[in-house]
Formats: sequence, structure tokens, C-alpha cells
Amino acid sequence: MILSRDADKYRQLVESSQLPNLELTTDRGACDIILGEPKLIRKVLSDLSALKWIQSVYAGVEPLVEPAQRRDYILTNARAVFGELMSEYVFAYLLFHEKKILERIKAQQSLQWERPDSGLLRGKTIGLLGVGSIGAHLAGTAKHFGMKVRGFTRESESSTQVDRYYHGNDLHAFVDGLDYLVCVLPNTNETNKIVDANLLNALPSHAIFINVGRGNAVDESALVDALNEGKIATAVLDVFEKEPLPKDHPFWTTPNLYMTFHTSAISYPEDITKLFIENYRLYIEGKPLRFVVDFERGY
Amino acid sequence: MILSRDADKYRQLVESSQLPNLELTTDRGACDIILGEPKLIRKVLSDLSALKWIQSVYAGVEPLVEPAQRRDYILTNARAVFGELMSEYVFAYLLFHEKKILERIKAQQSLQWERPDSGLLRGKTIGLLGVGSIGAHLAGTAKHFGMKVRGFTRESESSTQVDRYYHGNDLHAFVDGLDYLVCVLPNTNETNKIVDANLLNALPSHAIFINVGRGNAVDESALVDALNEGKIATAVLDVFEKEPLPKDHPFWTTPNLYMTFHTSAISYPEDITKLFIENYRLYIEGKPLRFVVDFERGY
Repeated sequence: MILSRDADKYRQLVESSQLPNLELTTDRGACDIILGEPKLIRKVLSDLSALKWIQSVYAGVEPLVEPAQRRDYILTNARAVFGELMSEYVFAYLLFHEKKILERIKAQQSLQWERPDSGLLRGKTIGLLGVGSIGAHLAGTAKHFGMKVRGFTRESESSTQVDRYYHGNDLHAFVDGLDYLVCVLPNTNETNKIVDANLLNALPSHAIFINVGRGNAVDESALVDALNEGKIATAVLDVFEKEPLPKDHPFWTTPNLYMTFHTSAISYPEDITKLFIENYRLYIEGKPLRFVVDFERGY
Repeated sequence: MILSRDADKYRQLVESSQLPNLELTTDRGACDIILGEPKLIRKVLSDLSALKWIQSVYAGVEPLVEPAQRRDYILTNARAVFGELMSEYVFAYLLFHEKKILERIKAQQSLQWERPDSGLLRGKTIGLLGVGSIGAHLAGTAKHFGMKVRGFTRESESSTQVDRYYHGNDLHAFVDGLDYLVCVLPNTNETNKIVDANLLNALPSHAIFINVGRGNAVDESALVDALNEGKIATAVLDVFEKEPLPKDHPFWTTPNLYMTFHTSAISYPEDITKLFIENYRLYIEGKPLRFVVDFERGY
């Protein structure tokens, strides 16, 4: 069963791939595999009596991992496909900042042959708050541009592109002297407000903070203060505690804050279907699937 | 002898590297090696009776390769060090465009939760007009972002990151269907106005043109027309036929044109001195130097 706003597109892609023994159905009681959006799936979760496997089309699967929900099936997410999209987004904003693109547009508008010094990515230090498959991709792009890479994770040290890992209580050592802090964390109890006033104060005043993970990771009023007081130079947010962002939220008028609205990585059906096909082949061979979600951890 | 606006910095860097048998001098008749800026060197060129080798701190060496100038020495340029800087610049503007950063800033200013679709670098085709050491670096970054890379060169096919090379009369096949055209050409007779009305018309209307080579490569009035008539979407220029750009030049008011003022790659004395040291070691061992300029070709 396919449950997505892009269902027509997914149906077409899945059908044209002619997977063995796969039938598309709309019968909730009969289907054992679901490809779709966590929020839509949750609505029918209790009706799915034959359920064996859900492939989420997103990386975030919050609606499906809440403690009250059933956990008698395999849940896989789509974190694999967002690394390259997130990398384009994060480096777009880092380069936009370093190359002073807005200042240069203004110089041009005032008909001035002005040549403000550009900054460089080369030689800078980036800190990745969370190094799963997305963080690993960001680390690879950072190394391509000649940067130093730090990673903060629960325990894993899987990406070889990270120069140094930090865990647990090392959060302040991790951010000390960072030029860029990028949050790629999922929404879990442990990530709540991890980016708080203390952490923001520990960053250099020239630092840029980017959040492409989940809004819960940021103490939003502390971030407003840090930007108002110049404790950090710039923030770029794609995710928020409440989405859409309420009209009266102070973020709308906070200086040096760039906001985009949950668009840093879009689920392209072509990408997701490729991942689904790969997992389906493993599934029918009885092999372990890729990107299985740990219900307890929540990602 | 060091001839540069950054002479103090260069002197300090060269002295601290303690190169064997190297003495700094200001005696034009005695010095056999010059490290410096082509324009400054040309002024004293005829006084340098012991001259053996000039290391230019720039990639462009126009003042030293004019037919009337002496050619009885080895001229090396600094093209090696600009690849990574140019790459930051070019991809800053490509990503700025694809991520619709200006549109998103405007949505934020109007307090709108607007989510315009982003474009992707991934899957796009970039054409490099000129593939020397700078073009090769751009090709590497393009491949990192999952792009297809075409290269147009006189004859060389040295970068393995280029998917397909074009030469000679293949210019129109080269630009056909390009998403991005980036000019990295040096200033020579053969590159004069190579980007003309025909070439611009042959590009798709969504194409972006970036010039980080030399201003002579572009027919500037044809580019004004192409932008005014929407024949291409955007141009980004760092170099111009006349620099500084004259106050009455139509570029100042041409739509969809971003200008920066010969800042896409700065000569950092640290980078150049590293290159100089490498070449100096080859020089005293009597080995061929790196990045030797062909006076006839001009680069």
C-alpha cells in the first residue's frame, strides 16, 4: 500500500520497476508492506493486521515511534537519500555568508567598484551535531572544501571523514572555537534543547549556526538572545519547534537570522523508490533491511 | 627580488622558510629570480640583466607575454593555487541561485511561510570553457555534487573528472543543453569574444553563465542583450573588459546580472610562497619548474 501525497507518482515508479511478487493494494487488512508518509500511516496503523514492514519516505518518523504506538513490524526510514540534498543546502548558506553575496549585491546597486574581502571555507572548522548518514555526507563535502570536521554523536564514529569525535559530556569541548555548527539531530527526548544558551555562548562570535535537523533541538528564545546580543554572527534555520512558524514568533524580526521553511531536503519519489526497491529485494530474500529505525532511540 | 604590494608579507614568509643559497635583494642588476606581480615586474624588466626566472603571484601574466617583451627567462605563474578559491566562488553562486536564497529572504521579510521549490546541482550539466588546473578543480567539485561535466579546451584532456571533452569547432555542441557555463579562459587572442551572441543564443534560457577567467572572452554588449531578452537566466561576472568597470557601463543596470570585482580568487601570500618554495627547490636542482608559461600561447 502506498500512502503519500505523491501516491500517483510512487505508483507509477513502483509499477514500472516490476518487482517480483509485489502487488499494489488499498486493502488495509491485506497489505504487509507500506511505503509512505509517517503521519498518514499513523492514521491507519491499527487497521494493518498483516503489517510486516513500513518504508517511510522521510527521515523523521516521529508519528510512528511514540511509545503508545505498535512496534510489531520493521520500520525503515529514508535517511540515506537526504545527505546530498542537505549538503547542497548547508554549503549554499555557508558560501553565501563567506562570499558576502548580499554585500556585493548592494555594492553593485550603489554603482561602486567595491571589493570586500571574501572569507574562505578552506581551513575553517565545522562541527556536526549528529553524524548519521546525513552528517557523514556533510563531512565529505566539508573535506572536499579543505575544512576541519568535528562530530558529536551518542557513540557511533562511523564516518571516516570526521577528524575528531566527541560524545556525552564533551559538548563544550566540541563547540569550542567552531566556525560553523550544524545540527542534524533527530527529534528525541535526548536532543531536546541541546542547543541552549550555554552552548550558544560557548561558540565564537563569528560562528554560524545552521539547523537542518529538528526544531526541538534548539532553545528558540536563547537563540533569539544570542543573535540580538551578537553572541554568534548568523543563524540559518530550516526547522522550528512549531511549524508553520507562528505569526507572532520573535524569529520573524530577529537580526542575522535566515529562515527557510522545512525545504532543506525534499523527498523526491525517484530517490525514495530507488531505496524502496533496494530494501524490497533484501526483504524478499529475508535479509536485514537498510536504515532500520530503532523504536527506542526514535531514529 | 620581491615586487608586490604584499612585499613585507612575502619577505617574512620567504625568510622564515630558510631556503638554501637564497638572498633577498633590491639590486635589479644582480637578481636572477623575481617573485611578484606581472604589472610591477614589467616596469623594471629591461633592467634585470641577470634574470633567469620570474614566479608570478597571479595566474594572469598578460603584461609579461606581450610580443614586444623579452622572453629570455623562465616565467611561471600561480594557476595552481586558485582552483580551490575559484571553486568556492563558482559554487557559492550556483547554490545561491538553485536554493533561491534571495526569494527566501523576501518571503521571510513578508512574514510568509512560503516554500518555493529549490533546484538541485545534482544531475545538472556544467560546461567548463577552459580546463587547466582551475577548470580541473571546478570539475572535481561538480562531480562531488553529482553533476555532469563537459570541458572545452584547445587540445588537452588532462582532467579525468570531465565526462566529455570538446575542441575546436565543437563549441556549439559543447554548450547545447548546458545548465551552467563557466568561463575560466586566460586572456589571449584566441579567446577574444568567444562568448558571443551566437554562443549565448545556443544556451538554454534557464542557463547561468559565470566568468571567472578574463573579461576579453565575453562580447559584453551581446551579454547585455541576452540578459535583457531572457536568452539566459543569470550571469555572474568577476572580470570585465575594462577594470574598474566604467560608471556608464550598461552592466550596472542589466537585469539578472551579479557582479563582483575581480575578487573570485585572491593571491594569498601563504599559498604563493608555498608554490614558490616548491619551484625554488626544483630550480636549484636544475629540474623543470611547475606551471611554466608558454610565451606564445600566453598562459
